Amino acid sequence: MIKNGTVTIIAGGAGFIGCTLAKKLLDNGESVAIIDNCSRGSFDYLKSLDLDGDLTFIHADLSEKNACRSAFEEVANKGRVVDVWHLAANSDIPAGIDNPRIDLKDTFQTTFEILECMRELGIENLHFASSSAIYGDHGEQLLFESIGPLLPISNYGAMKLASEAQISAAAETFLKKANIFRFPNVVGVPATHGVILDLMRKLKQDRRKLDVLGNGTQKKSYLHVSDLVNAMLFIEKRNDESNITLANIGPIDEGVTVRWIAENVRDRVSPSAELHFGTENRGWIGDVPKFLYSVEKLVSWGWRPELSSSEAIVRAIDEIALQEGL
Amino acid sequence: MIKNGTVTIIAGGAGFIGCTLAKKLLDNGESVAIIDNCSRGSFDYLKSLDLDGDLTFIHADLSEKNACRSAFEEVANKGRVVDVWHLAANSDIPAGIDNPRIDLKDTFQTTFEILECMRELGIENLHFASSSAIYGDHGEQLLFESIGPLLPISNYGAMKLASEAQISAAAETFLKKANIFRFPNVVGVPATHGVILDLMRKLKQDRRKLDVLGNGTQKKSYLHVSDLVNAMLFIEKRNDESNITLANIGPIDEGVTVRWIAENVRDRVSPSAELHFGTENRGWIGDVPKFLYSVEKLVSWGWRPELSSSEAIVRAIDEIALQEGL
Repeated sequence: MIKNGTVTIIAGGAGFIGCTLAKKLLDNGESVAIIDNCSRGSFDYLKSLDLDGDLTFIHADLSEKNACRSAFEEVANKGRVVDVWHLAANSDIPAGIDNPRIDLKDTFQTTFEILECMRELGIENLHFASSSAIYGDHGEQLLFESIGPLLPISNYGAMKLASEAQISAAAETFLKKANIFRFPNVVGVPATHGVILDLMRKLKQDRRKLDVLGNGTQKKSYLHVSDLVNAMLFIEKRNDESNITLANIGPIDEGVTVRWIAENVRDRVSPSAELHFGTENRGWIGDVPKFLYSVEKLVSWGWRPELSSSEAIVRAIDEIALQEGL
Repeated sequence: MIKNGTVTIIAGGAGFIGCTLAKKLLDNGESVAIIDNCSRGSFDYLKSLDLDGDLTFIHADLSEKNACRSAFEEVANKGRVVDVWHLAANSDIPAGIDNPRIDLKDTFQTTFEILECMRELGIENLHFASSSAIYGDHGEQLLFESIGPLLPISNYGAMKLASEAQISAAAETFLKKANIFRFPNVVGVPATHGVILDLMRKLKQDRRKLDVLGNGTQKKSYLHVSDLVNAMLFIEKRNDESNITLANIGPIDEGVTVRWIAENVRDRVSPSAELHFGTENRGWIGDVPKFLYSVEKLVSWGWRPELSSSEAIVRAIDEIALQEGL
């Protein structure tokens, strides 16, 4: 039963962040259609939620022209589509560095095909999950939205920037509103990837020692997924006059080191394990060793996160340990 | 006969700028392999040049994985490839706005497939024709290389920015050197598109009147293709330490208006024709009405153009009139 005759599409809605957003929109009484190829996401993530709204799930690969069009038409037949939240992407950055075609397809071509469908079907509003990875490595420079040049160092960051660019051109012609959210590192459940999950799975294999990628000094800020989704909805509801709104989302602090995270994971899972660090100041090629991420713009609009980086990590460690049966 | 055992590839080398670059490299004694799908370019442009070096021409669509790979392998069998100049792109911006798949394929997928070939074949240096269109419309703001946010308003600009992003990620992994040249509006021959050619062809149809897109107040700077190619070679030879060099190329002046160009074309081709202007301050969607393009960085390195915007236009009007038999 479609409420108000409108349906909201979440592309990649069966993923880590997508399913948290879906729950929130459904709780708000919206009709939601999730389109996902379940490469990383899973319909199981949605089944376990206490859903209180109208949910449609379509299994489709949005990077494929015909599959994307069919899925969008199926939703459009149920009700008027006004808003698309686009969170579909490859979330495994190192995999995309080994094979650039992964990010081409899952991170960029999804955006391209979604925009083409929106243009052809007259869907007006796009809310897009971009990334702090579009900035590249600026050393000690504070990363605010108007910094340049944008020189991403991973194919993931490159294809997120390509997506932003294509959305920007679309906002000049047919999109009524584009919100571009530049995500920080996000933690929480259901965890599908990321530093906490990696460390826990290593400890599951060997409770006595924990090998950490890089020398542990990489310092990053982390946002809990609940704060991230709140920020996205805060920006969307704000609905300023410009047809493109671009905002960094993240915590207000300067973040925590990988060493600090590793110590907390060890203490929670296997306190007697020995930590072993690498020698490089980055975990992998494409990993930005340190960044100072400015959320000044978002804060000036009145938003505040509930949890700091360290609080988000501590909560996520508990949640992921539970998920992993630890 | 391959000189020094090395061959330089020019992707899109049969186009307007590519064939001027080819002539210069051949004049310098390099062995050159041009790969072009001749969608806009033509081998005829090369035949008419006074070539004094070793030239290979391969007709191939570089946006297609297998065709790109075959073409690169064919060149690599002739000699060691160290440098690739990538100028292949859709140059018809309005066409790309009507159909975004044109710029996806010709402007971005060419870059993607060229990079994949370079990675697989171990080719180290890429010199890329980017564009001032990656900046979008910043109003009165001076456009220097580190300005942001980058919000292109045409699919052409979007796919040039996507290309820059992918090259930037490649420079983090396998490219030894990437030069990214942000081109201004370029004039000269062989003209395949652009405001001067458009206006002349209209006058060919009707010598009595000339309809100009937009109200004529759009003000832009123009560089003659000879100055552009000199700037590219100047930057390449400079070879600074960073593995990515990013530079605006353009004249030092603030440019000329479309009205001024139209008057000069009329005076040259059909002095008695009446000029008719539109009402919009842009010629088409995606056309930036005015921009102030900073080449301060390039000038600080010691480069100066030979011709100003107005001198470049005057020379190009003569050259294109000759090309068009006027």
